[in-house]
This record gives sequence, C-alpha cells and structure tokens, in this order.
Amino acid sequence: MADDLAQARHDLAVANRIVSYEGIIDAFGHVSMRHPTRPDRFLISRSRSPEVVEASDIYQYTLDSQPVTPLPQGIRGYGELVIHGEIYKARPDINAVAHHHGMAFLPFCNSGETLLPLYHMGAQIGEKVPFWDSRDEFGDTNLLVLKPEEGASLARALGPYWLVLMRRHGATVAGRNLTELVFRTIYTYRNAELQLTCKAQGHPLSPLTPGEQKLSWQRNLEPRPQARAWEYWSMRLRKAGEYPAVPPKRSATRSAKAGTARRRSATRKKSRAS
Amino acid sequence: MADDLAQARHDLAVANRIVSYEGIIDAFGHVSMRHPTRPDRFLISRSRSPEVVEASDIYQYTLDSQPVTPLPQGIRGYGELVIHGEIYKARPDINAVAHHHGMAFLPFCNSGETLLPLYHMGAQIGEKVPFWDSRDEFGDTNLLVLKPEEGASLARALGPYWLVLMRRHGATVAGRNLTELVFRTIYTYRNAELQLTCKAQGHPLSPLTPGEQKLSWQRNLEPRPQARAWEYWSMRLRKAGEYPAVPPKRSATRSAKAGTARRRSATRKKSRAS
Amino acid sequence: MADDLAQARHDLAVANRIVSYEGIIDAFGHVSMRHPTRPDRFLISRSRSPEVVEASDIYQYTLDSQPVTPLPQGIRGYGELVIHGEIYKARPDINAVAHHHGMAFLPFCNSGETLLPLYHMGAQIGEKVPFWDSRDEFGDTNLLVLKPEEGASLARALGPYWLVLMRRHGATVAGRNLTELVFRTIYTYRNAELQLTCKAQGHPLSPLTPGEQKLSWQRNLEPRPQARAWEYWSMRLRKAGEYPAVPPKRSATRSAKAGTARRRSATRKKSRAS
Amino acid sequence: MADDLAQARHDLAVANRIVSYEGIIDAFGHVSMRHPTRPDRFLISRSRSPEVVEASDIYQYTLDSQPVTPLPQGIRGYGELVIHGEIYKARPDINAVAHHHGMAFLPFCNSGETLLPLYHMGAQIGEKVPFWDSRDEFGDTNLLVLKPEEGASLARALGPYWLVLMRRHGATVAGRNLTELVFRTIYTYRNAELQLTCKAQGHPLSPLTPGEQKLSWQRNLEPRPQARAWEYWSMRLRKAGEYPAVPPKRSATRSAKAGTARRRSATRKKSRAS
Repeated sequence: MADDLAQARHDLAVANRIVSYEGIIDAFGHVSMRHPTRPDRFLISRSRSPEVVEASDIYQYTLDSQPVTPLPQGIRGYGELVIHGEIYKARPDINAVAHHHGMAFLPFCNSGETLLPLYHMGAQIGEKVPFWDSRDEFGDTNLLVLKPEEGASLARALGPYWLVLMRRHGATVAGRNLTELVFRTIYTYRNAELQLTCKAQGHPLSPLTPGEQKLSWQRNLEPRPQARAWEYWSMRLRKAGEYPAVPPKRSATRSAKAGTARRRSATRKKSRAS
Repeated sequence: MADDLAQARHDLAVANRIVSYEGIIDAFGHVSMRHPTRPDRFLISRSRSPEVVEASDIYQYTLDSQPVTPLPQGIRGYGELVIHGEIYKARPDINAVAHHHGMAFLPFCNSGETLLPLYHMGAQIGEKVPFWDSRDEFGDTNLLVLKPEEGASLARALGPYWLVLMRRHGATVAGRNLTELVFRTIYTYRNAELQLTCKAQGHPLSPLTPGEQKLSWQRNLEPRPQARAWEYWSMRLRKAGEYPAVPPKRSATRSAKAGTARRRSATRKKSRAS
Repeated sequence: MADDLAQARHDLAVANRIVSYEGIIDAFGHVSMRHPTRPDRFLISRSRSPEVVEASDIYQYTLDSQPVTPLPQGIRGYGELVIHGEIYKARPDINAVAHHHGMAFLPFCNSGETLLPLYHMGAQIGEKVPFWDSRDEFGDTNLLVLKPEEGASLARALGPYWLVLMRRHGATVAGRNLTELVFRTIYTYRNAELQLTCKAQGHPLSPLTPGEQKLSWQRNLEPRPQARAWEYWSMRLRKAGEYPAVPPKRSATRSAKAGTARRRSATRKKSRAS
Repeated sequence: MADDLAQARHDLAVANRIVSYEGIIDAFGHVSMRHPTRPDRFLISRSRSPEVVEASDIYQYTLDSQPVTPLPQGIRGYGELVIHGEIYKARPDINAVAHHHGMAFLPFCNSGETLLPLYHMGAQIGEKVPFWDSRDEFGDTNLLVLKPEEGASLARALGPYWLVLMRRHGATVAGRNLTELVFRTIYTYRNAELQLTCKAQGHPLSPLTPGEQKLSWQRNLEPRPQARAWEYWSMRLRKAGEYPAVPPKRSATRSAKAGTARRRSATRKKSRAS
C-alpha cells in the first residue's frame, strides 16, 4: 500500500513535468490523479508550477477538496482544487485530471469555435467537446473555479465526455488513468494547433467521420501506443535533466518484490518501462 | 541598507534574465527598479543586453536619469534612460519598469490595433492600453526615447495605466514592484500572442467584461500566484544555467540576520523562495 | 557482411534521430532502410519512438513485413510495417522509407491542397505529390496502414513518385538511400512550412517551373550538398547529446580494414564524414 | 599581419555561428568577409554548414572566386562563391556578405512583395530592397548562383543597396564590416518576420517614414548598439557551447602586443569585448 502510494506520487510528478515540458502548461495549471487504493481521495501537488513538482510536493485530498491531513505550516494548496474534486465525485470512471491554459486552446476558449478531430491522433478529443461559460451561472468572476458549486457546474458541463473548454480561461482534460490523461492532453493540444493552422489557410475543415473517430480513439488507447508515447515523453524529460528525483526507498522495495509484485495500473507499468 | 541594495541589485539581475529567457527581450530592451530605500533614485544595468546582466552591472541613477556617481571609465549607460526616470518621476506608485520590442507586441505598435484582455491572465494589461506616437510631438526621429522631454511625453501618455505601446518601436510596462512587473510583462505578452492568433482565425474578439478584468487583475496580484510564477521563472533560469551569480557576502549577512530582519518588499521574499 | 549490417543499423539509428531532432517526427512515425546486401529484406526499429532508437533496436523483416527471425520475447514491432514492406516490394529503386505525421504536412493531408515546390530546396517533393485516401478502398478505419492490402494500396498511390500524402493521417517519403531520404524528409517539410506561410499571406503561389524543379532536384542530390547536410544534421545530434551510441566492435573492424574496405553506399560514406 | 588574419578567421567563424544559432541559416547558406589587409581577396569557409565552421575551415579567395592557393586534397569550396566575389568586386565599400534561405524571407522571395521597415530595427533593410530574378537573364536554372555572370548579375541588382532578394531562392545581405553584417542579417530577418505577422492580421502596413528610416539606420550603426548586440550574440554562443575554438597562438600574440597593436576594424574590437 505504502509502495503503491509512493509509486503513484512519483508517476504524478512525472506526468506534471511531461505536460509542462511538452509546452502545454506554464506557471499555472495542475495535474491530479485519484488515489491508487482509496477512490474517495485524490493526489495533487501543493501550489507549485507543474514543471517543478516533486513527488514530495504531492498531498492527499478528499473528493470535497479538503486535505486529508492538514498541510504543513507554510504550505498552500492550489486555488482551483474543486475542478479535480468535483470531477472525481461526478465521474467514477475518471482517475486523472489536468487543467491548463495552453496557448493553442485559448483561441477556441475565446471564440467558442467547435474543436474537431482533424487527424487520427486528434480522435482523443472524444465524440464531442463541451463548452463551459462560468458567466452563465455565476456572472462576473475572476474566471477561476474556486467554489464547490463552480467545480460541480464544470463537472456537469463535462458530462460523459473527456475534455471541456472553459470560456476565456482554459481547458480541463480527463483520463481513465494517468498515461491516458497525458496522452489525451498532448494530442488534443496538437489537434488544436492543427485546427488553428487549417483555419488560417482558409480551407474548410475535413474532420474524421464518427466511425473513424471511434476506431482511432480505440486504437490510440491500446497498450502499445500508450506505452510507446509514455516512454518517449519520459525519455525526453530524462535527457533534458527534468525527470523528477526517484524516491530512494522505492528501488529497494522493488528489487525485493520484483518477481512477485502484482502490478495494478497500466500507468505504473509504463512508467517503469521508460 | 547596504544589504537591501545588494538584494535589490541581485533581484533586478534575475528579472532582467527572466524576461529575456521567456523570449520577450532580445539584445535590446531594459528593466529597472526604484531604489529600495531612496525613492528619488532608480537602479538599472549599464548598456548591456538583459540576458547577460549581472548584479555588478547595475548602477544608481537620479530621477533626472543622471548617474548618482560617475560611471567607471569605459562603462556606458543605456541610451533610453529617460523612459525609466520620467516614469518614476511622474508615478510614485510605480517601482519597476521594463521596455521591450517583443515580436508579439510589434504588430500592435505598427497597426495601432487596441490590445484587449482575452483570457484571465491577460487582465494584466489593465483597464486600457494607451498608444504613444513620438511623431505627434517630435516629428521624424530615430524612434528612440533619448531626451527628457521625450521621456516625459511617454510618461504622460502612460497616464494612470500600466502598459503603453510605442508606435513602430515597442512597449513600456510598469509595476508596483519587480515581481508584479515581470508577471505583467510576461502575461501581457502572452495575451498579445493570443490576440494575434485569434485575429488570424478571423473570429470576432471576445474580451473579458470590465468586471472580469478587474477581478482577474486583483486575483493575479495576490501573493500566491505572484510567488508561484516567480518561483517558476527563477527555477527555469536555474535549470538552464542562466541564473545570475549570487553575491558572496549576502548569504553570510542573511544567516546572521535571519530571525530578525524585517522584510520590506514582496519581491525580495519571492526571490528567496525560488 | 556483418560489418555492413552493423554500419547500416547504426546509420539507421542516426537517421531516426535526425528526423526527430529536426522536429518532424514525435512519439509516432518510423524510418526504415533496405538491407544493405539482401534486397529482399528491410531494417526497422522495434516499436519505439524514433528519437530514442538505438542500433540494437533494429531488426530485419522480409518484404512481406514478417520478422526474419522471431522477435525476442516482450519485443514488439511497429503496427504499420506494411507501409515499408509494400513500398520496397513495389519499388526496387527505393532503399529507404520514412512515415511521419509532421504538423506542417497535416493541413495538406486534411484539405487535399496540392504541395508545390516554392523554392529550390522544395524541388525535393518531386514532379508531383500524390494523395491517398484510405476511405476510397477501405471505408471507415482507424486510419492506420495495418494490413498488407492497405500497404499495397498506398504503394500504388505513390506510383513512380517519392512522397505521398495520406488523408487525415500523415505522409510517407522515399529515397534511393538513407541520406537522400533524410534530406527529402526535411526539405519537403520546410517547403510545406513555406507553403503554409505563403497561403496565410494571401499571395498567389509562384512555384518553380518544371525545368527549375528538375534542375534543382538534380543539384540537391549531388554528393556535395548531400554530404554537407548529413554532416550538419549529425553534428547537431552530437552537440545535443542525441547521437546514438556507436557499437564498440565497429571501430576495431574499421581500423583493421580502413585501407581496403570497399564502401558501397553513399550513406555509409557520409555517416563517416560526420 | 598574420595576427590580423588569424583574428579575422576567428571572427568570421563566430559570425557564421551567430547567424546559424539565431535561426537564419540552416545546413546551407554562407558568410564571408573581405581579407583584412588585402582588399583583393576574401575569406570564406570550405563547403560546410555555417553552424559548424571553425577558423581552420576558412580559406582565401581572389575576387574572381578562385582559391589563392589550391585547396588541400579532399577539401571543396562552396558552389556559390561568385555571390561573394562579384559583390566585393563591384562594391569596394562592402567588406562582409551573407547568403541565406531563411524561412521568414522566402515568402517574399516567392511573392515578390516589397519588404518595408516596420520598426526602428527594421531600418537596417536600407532605403530599398531590390528583387533579383535569375530567370530574367538565365532562364531555367537550378536557381543557384554558380557562374561568374550570374554573380555579376546579382551584384548589379544589389546596386547601391545592402540587401537583395533572390526569386524562389533566398537573400544576400552586405555590410561595411562583419559586425554590421551580422546585425543587418538578424534585424532584417526580424523585420521580415514582423511583416509576415502584420500581413496575416490583415492590417495595412505602416512603414517608417524615409526620415525615420534614415535616422534609425544611423543610430543602429553607432558603436554602442553594435557592440551590445555583438556581445549578446557571442555570449549566447558561449552559453550554448557553440563558440568556436580560439586559436591557441592568438592569446600569446595578443598579450605581447596588447599595449601597442593598432586595431583597425570595429569588428575585431567588438569580438574581443565579448
């Protein structure tokens, strides 16, 4: 159990850094995952830019976005925790969430233009991308999602989908596990970049058919492409000297259990392969 | 006092390098701050690209943009010192100023198109972004702001705002302290990039409401987001090997005073947190 | 023979990394070459992102895209091997193939707009760039080229040319040798970037005349520009610490044979010059 | 004399690498300078990408683009030497020349659209940018400038100006010395980038007045901005590990002569300051 949690915190630090290194999150934004053995909790860093998150920065929260144990003195959590908590509460199938203000998404957040899947990797946007406007329910705000009712409203807007745009603010992405989340965050971003370029060319957009979207979505989520992409992004972190420190106790634990440990999550397997 | 000044010079070197590293200033442009204890003076580097400024490059000037003591032989100051001096003179609430020719601002400097806040971080442009045309008062020039009357004219154009565009030249940004200045310089730049992309898509722009702009502006200036962003940018400098050398005497001084020193400026606190 | 193969695997690892480092291939995509002495085989990495391919990752396949010897346990090949096998089968003059989803090509894959040679280096697109739509023969798929008949269909679409666009998916590029392939992959990509920019400017495109295309094509394929470009890209890998490990046995072999070894392929010569 | 030449070769290697590092020249393109004491000769690298040029790669040529002494066996010169030789022959005031295919220039080379000075640094394009079309005199070619009569034609097109666009090929830039050349190459490139962005916004362009262009041109060429920019670009090379090796004999020579050597060119002075 303790080992599962240590591994989860390490994997989450890696995920934070990948989405930063690949250019999607800057100083702001955050990435969380559901607790590996306690589905009524989630893990997320203290208030820190994802690019510099370490495993030791990660704390546990209830689905009401309250710390499981009080944070140490001087440590503060993110302001928008309810984005994560309310989505985990509403969607038991979601085990990882990212919120970002990536520059290629913001034009869609501003104009409300519909995101469309324009190549096979873009199928990861899902069948539909809902659009949430905080002003509809809450009027003028600072645009952040700070109150439980704001988080719940966003979770309702997400509905059964995997990506929701937030008016003049950013996007929230979800996955069934951390690897899938990182994959979706990056490839929905590439698809948004592509849509911007296609529009600037003045061509009518030619999206995937619904059948192609579904088949490509399934293919992308198979173990081989998921593992290959996670290895690629992890290796890039390593080569750049950006890979988070590995907790010292883990390797001992792991070698002792190597032949027997049952590995539960695809995420952990992939992290190890990298 | 001496320690305050040493810290200020170090912080200012860091600020110079951050705005360079984040892609806004190239060989030209400059960043200054008001003297921490003498509001009738400001600190700015000798004529050197901000990317390579060290604390030891930073000299003191009066608000008439004259060096407090003559510069050492062979050392020259920037040509456009009056941008800084005249703004500090006109606006006691401003304690840090940056001038740049960032490529994402120049199209607005050329066309005169109005900058609008297009996402919550873009609220940092302020309520309005005035536009200054040197030709109105001075006719054909080399476009630089070299004479006191040119600096004073620019300061008048800035008026009560925090960012002024300069026709076919660049922009000048102001802050109440150095952290706020760096934050505003970077996020107004991101907002300009966003506006360029939105326009190239052919969509009508959908700016924040005045209420949203005000609320987002306030939120962005709270200690938590300010500290988080400064830590992020500082860490990026460190990882890239771009962080300026720390003066050797400071750490001794600091450890001696650690329990008692009263910390005056938010900027200094944040710098230490990084 | 063994030495030829070791050299080929090393060269292929370098080629994989060059096209990644120059920004054309990300986690997905692949680069292959025909076996240096067995034209009925080709060499390609196991399922791994080109950016991290080592010589030891490279295996031999028949032109029916079957491994010559079974892959070691736990090792999997790429899903789209038939792109390579079917092209080598159909085109004896092609000895190297790359498949990618480079972002500058995707708008053309989406819109079907014709790629045109817009500067002398862009002549490497060839006389014509055919467009393949998997839906014409296969209806809704996940857009990947997974079955032999899909690979054969793509090879027929390529016909006598050297670059084929794949609807909402990517591109496949071919060369007579590995150096030429890398050169074509990179400069056809630059030409696509240029075409995007020209279109966004709203100017009518002014392509090379057929005579200019032919003369520039020939010039670009001469040994001097080919060697110069390969040295450049290899040096960039080396400087970035991205050059693949050189197999330890090769240098001994090489120094022993240095005066006498007959060097068959231009590719190998260039690799050595770098 | 020997020392002058060694310094010139070093400076030229630095200049080659700066324009590469700043993103203007890739595998192709070249930078030359007139011999520091023999105006009937020029210095240029052997056929090698500018990014990897060392001082030891640089050879002397006559203004007829012939090597002063035969190149060592296996060493080849650039194909387009006549660009340099013919311009030095026609323009005694020009002492440094760069030829490149920078991506931001190519849309103008394709469309023939006039380059305009859109900010004060863009004044370095000069009063006018002529456009040369090789087809006018030579019909279909491979677009390279390979024959003396082609080089002479290009030099005539350049006329009394400092930058000439070459149809569907690239640009050639000139300076009175190497520092000025690098400065002009980089800032004319930034101006071209700006013009592309302005056009994509759909705004009418608002160029400098002729008076502003002239005054900004003069200001940019003063020693202070020239030295500051050269220091900046040199430091960036150093920090990136891209600075060329300094010849071992030079420092000895220099320290011996330090108090007395007469320094002829501004370029050399600036190089030393960096």
